[in-house]
This record gives sequence, structure tokens and C-alpha cells, in this order.
Amino acid sequence: MVTVLTDPDIAERLDARSAVGWMREAVLAAHSGALHTPPRVSTELGDGRLVFTTGALTGEWYGYRSYDSFSFEPGAQLVVVHDWHTGAVRGLAVGNELGPRRVGAIGAVAVDALAAPTAGSLGLVGTGTQAWNQLWAISTVRSLTSVSVFSRDPVRRNAFVARVSADLGLPVAAADWAREAIEGKDLVVLATNSPVPVVEASWIAPGSYVTTLGPKQIGRAEFGPDLVARADVAVTDSVAQTSAYDPPFILTGTEQHDRLTSLGAVLAGEAPGRTSADQTVIFCSVGLAGTETYLLARLLG
Amino acid sequence: MVTVLTDPDIAERLDARSAVGWMREAVLAAHSGALHTPPRVSTELGDGRLVFTTGALTGEWYGYRSYDSFSFEPGAQLVVVHDWHTGAVRGLAVGNELGPRRVGAIGAVAVDALAAPTAGSLGLVGTGTQAWNQLWAISTVRSLTSVSVFSRDPVRRNAFVARVSADLGLPVAAADWAREAIEGKDLVVLATNSPVPVVEASWIAPGSYVTTLGPKQIGRAEFGPDLVARADVAVTDSVAQTSAYDPPFILTGTEQHDRLTSLGAVLAGEAPGRTSADQTVIFCSVGLAGTETYLLARLLG
Repeated sequence: MVTVLTDPDIAERLDARSAVGWMREAVLAAHSGALHTPPRVSTELGDGRLVFTTGALTGEWYGYRSYDSFSFEPGAQLVVVHDWHTGAVRGLAVGNELGPRRVGAIGAVAVDALAAPTAGSLGLVGTGTQAWNQLWAISTVRSLTSVSVFSRDPVRRNAFVARVSADLGLPVAAADWAREAIEGKDLVVLATNSPVPVVEASWIAPGSYVTTLGPKQIGRAEFGPDLVARADVAVTDSVAQTSAYDPPFILTGTEQHDRLTSLGAVLAGEAPGRTSADQTVIFCSVGLAGTETYLLARLLG
Repeated sequence: MVTVLTDPDIAERLDARSAVGWMREAVLAAHSGALHTPPRVSTELGDGRLVFTTGALTGEWYGYRSYDSFSFEPGAQLVVVHDWHTGAVRGLAVGNELGPRRVGAIGAVAVDALAAPTAGSLGLVGTGTQAWNQLWAISTVRSLTSVSVFSRDPVRRNAFVARVSADLGLPVAAADWAREAIEGKDLVVLATNSPVPVVEASWIAPGSYVTTLGPKQIGRAEFGPDLVARADVAVTDSVAQTSAYDPPFILTGTEQHDRLTSLGAVLAGEAPGRTSADQTVIFCSVGLAGTETYLLARLLG
């Protein structure tokens, strides 16, 4: 018997608070070197690629996530956990639920470490899976007093607002413009696929916190160099993964890149993070490799 | 619901005749380019590696096999088949049964194409999983009149003979020496882990056929340069995979290497194979990549 979790299983069994705790552990384990997260590998198969991100927690488990770049949307992903000592498969997840849950949980770990303890208002651009999962997780580390959501399609936007209200019980409203959603908010979440900026630096208040989930390459990014210049603190869950971007990571060649800090170093107390209440933080979420497998390993118990 | 086949499922559902037919298709599809079989990729995870061999049959499916080089023996492997059009997972195999079945079936495809039609006597060195699966598959393409088996451990040897007799109904007997098992036989199967030769070229009769499953690198091979020199025809299921050997493939730098033929070219009628009854053939089995996935895809129907 092999345990196989499908998307409904993950949605039912994984609670946000546990996910955030486990992703905190994972980020720290990657930072200490206990969690091996080698660069991903891929093969070309004609019309698309198969991609593998692997991970191992020495003495506990090893495993991987597989996904593809064929044109189907979304192709099912696999996450596999092997027992370290026997090599047996402890369990599998088949589907697309685990990936964004883990990105959401890492996002919440970052908010908890880097945003103002009193942060309560949240502005969100984007209404996709990543957007939903950020709210799912962040709502466990901050008391969200208002959530304002913008996306280009009013139908999707209203459906998203209704779902967030029903599923997460958050005080949420749709905004007619990105600026209306974002301006002056304590927490800003950018979760778009936009290759051009959806935000202006002037909308970001001193002391606020911005997470970027979407494109962040030079010439293809959901925010511009003005926001980069505006940030006092720049943090990412994987410096190594930002270095592998092609075209380069948008912070490359800027003052922020020289100061780019890993979330693991902040959690370990080895890097300062946010040091005063008026500092503006940008968190560049790249999806630390190995964390899907970590999450499944913990969920399997 | 995701279909997951375990080792007992594979053993129950996969019949040798179908497996041989499907592997014939797979070898031809790889030769024509319809079956994409890119080089394998791997990642380092501290005490071991994860390895992925991928494959795609354009318009039908894509997928992969994963295995590891941790010190556990044997670590469970996964084989995954995705539907080409939807990206959904059509099914998985978890375990270690599919790999040697497919190597056995490819071995039988090669025997059928390259050995004498009347070949009936078979000499085997080795009593492991690969040895058993060669007999399982070859017995569907030739009427085996006698099978003679040698391995160093008499207990394992006798247990193997009993199992082959019971499971496959073949006329099988143990031999006390490798020479006794092999000498003068129509078909010779070498399925050892031996880094030194277990056979001498003088034992191989004119017109006979030798399959090698075990080590075949320069300085580490279950047969020696004398057997290479003795062979009139040298064939492999993947020229590309032999080229990737390090240390090099044992035929490298020999006359046989210049003549090394792919099994796919022989099946397609583009290479001669065996052209007279007294020619001696050596088949170097390397386990053509992508064929595990092919086998699972066909088994899933």
C-alpha cells in the first residue's frame, strides 16, 4: 500500500498554522545545511520539459517534486517522499495543491519575521491560486483587519472576494484600481503574472511590507526599479535561485542586491532583517526548492 | 483516483509475451525518433543521488522513472505516465518490478532478431532478478530445450533453479562451473555483477548468441576482450548510453565498436544484424531509457 494524496486530500488535511510552522522549520533547515536543496534538473522532451526539484533531510527522508513545461495548464505535479533509512516510498502527492500552499506558508513565515507586528491592512493584486494561498497562510500570523483586492477581470475579482470571505472569514473587499487596493496598506501582496509593473513606489507607505510572487526579472517584472530603490530591506527565500534567473533577477546591479538577505539568515538571527519601524521591506518569493517535499513529509507524519 | 501499481500488481498483470511485443515497439519508436529518450539527469543529496530517466511518445504520453543511489538495496523506484494532451497522471508504478521486466523483454526482442531461429539450449551465469527476467521473456521467443545455470553460491543457484522450474516450467538444471553452464550453448546469458570475466571466448560455439547484462566497462566487465574479438556482430539497445560510460564501454577502441549496431536499426531493417549461421553475436544490454515508462503506459492501456 502506497499513500497517495490528491488535491482534495491536501486541502482537507493541511491546516495553515501547521504549514507555516513546518515551512519555518524548512527554511531554517535549508539555511543550516540539514535540508539539501540542489539546483533543479530538467530534460527536453520535444514539445516540453520535465523538471525535477529534489531535497533531502539527512537521516529523515529524501524526495522530489516533478512538474512539466508542456502547454497544458496545469499539468499534474508529483511530490514523492522516501524514507531515508529504507528507501521505501512514504507517500506521494499527485496534483497541484501542495506547491502554492507551501509558497503561501513561506510567505507567512516572511511576514511574521519581517512585517510590523501590528500590520493589519493588506492590499492584494492578483486573484489566482498564489494570491489565495498567501491570504490562507498570512492570516495565521497577523490579525488582518481589512483585505483589499484588485485584478483586471471584475468577474474573477468578485468571485475571489466571495471565496476569501467564505473560506477564510476575512474582512475583504474588491478594489477598482490597483492603487486603491495597495496605497497606504501595511502589507502588500503582488501575485500576478504581469510582465510590467502593477504598482508605483509612491503608493507604498513607510514601514510597510511588500511580497512579490510574480515575475521579477530585468525587463519582465510585476514591479519596477522604483520599488526596488524604495525598499530599505530586501529578502528572499533563496538567494541561489534568484542568481539562476535568466534574464537576471530585477535586483541585480542595484544597491538592494548587495544587501539581499536570505530569509533563513533572518530566522537564524544571523542577518538583521527590519531594524526600525519606518523601514520598507520587499520580500522576493521564489519558492525555495525542497520545501514541497518537506511539507509532504511533515503532512505524512 | 490515481492508479498505483505495486510490485505484486506488475507481477500479476504483465505477461511476458505482451511485454516483449511492447518493448519491440518501444525500441522501434526510439529508433524512429517518435519515442524521445533524452540522457538521464541526477542531483546530489549528500549521501546519495536521485536519478531521473525521462521519455515521451509524442501525442500519447510523457513520463519518467526515478531511482536513487543511496546505500539501501533496493530503494523503491517510481515510474510515472502522464497523458500527453491533459497532463494528468495516467498511472504510477512504485517498486522494483518494472525495470528488470523491461530489460528481460528487450533481451528477448534482441534474441528474436539476432539468434538462430532454432536456438534451444541456454547457458546462464547469474541468479539474480535480471537473470530470472531474461528467462521469463526469452522463453516466449525461443523453445528452450535446456537451461543450465551457474552462480557462485550453490544455495542461491539451487533456489533459482527450483523457482525457474516452478514459475516458468522450463527444463532447467544447475551447473557446477560456469564453463559447464555455457560451453557450446546456442544462447548464453551473462547476468552477474562481476567486475572480472566469468566466461572464456573458447567456450562460445560458432553461430551462438551472447547477451551481457552485467558490467561492461574497460577494466570492469563480466567478459573480456577475447569475447569481444570473438564476436562477429555486436549490437546494443542504446549506442548513446554506451557512449556515456565512464570508464569507457569495453568495446571502445576495438573493431567491434566500429561495427556496433543499434537494435532499433536491426529491427527497422536498416542494419544487417546476423547474416550467416556461423556468426557469433554479442548483445550488450544497457536498458534503453524511456522503456520503463513505455511499458507502464502500455500496461495501463
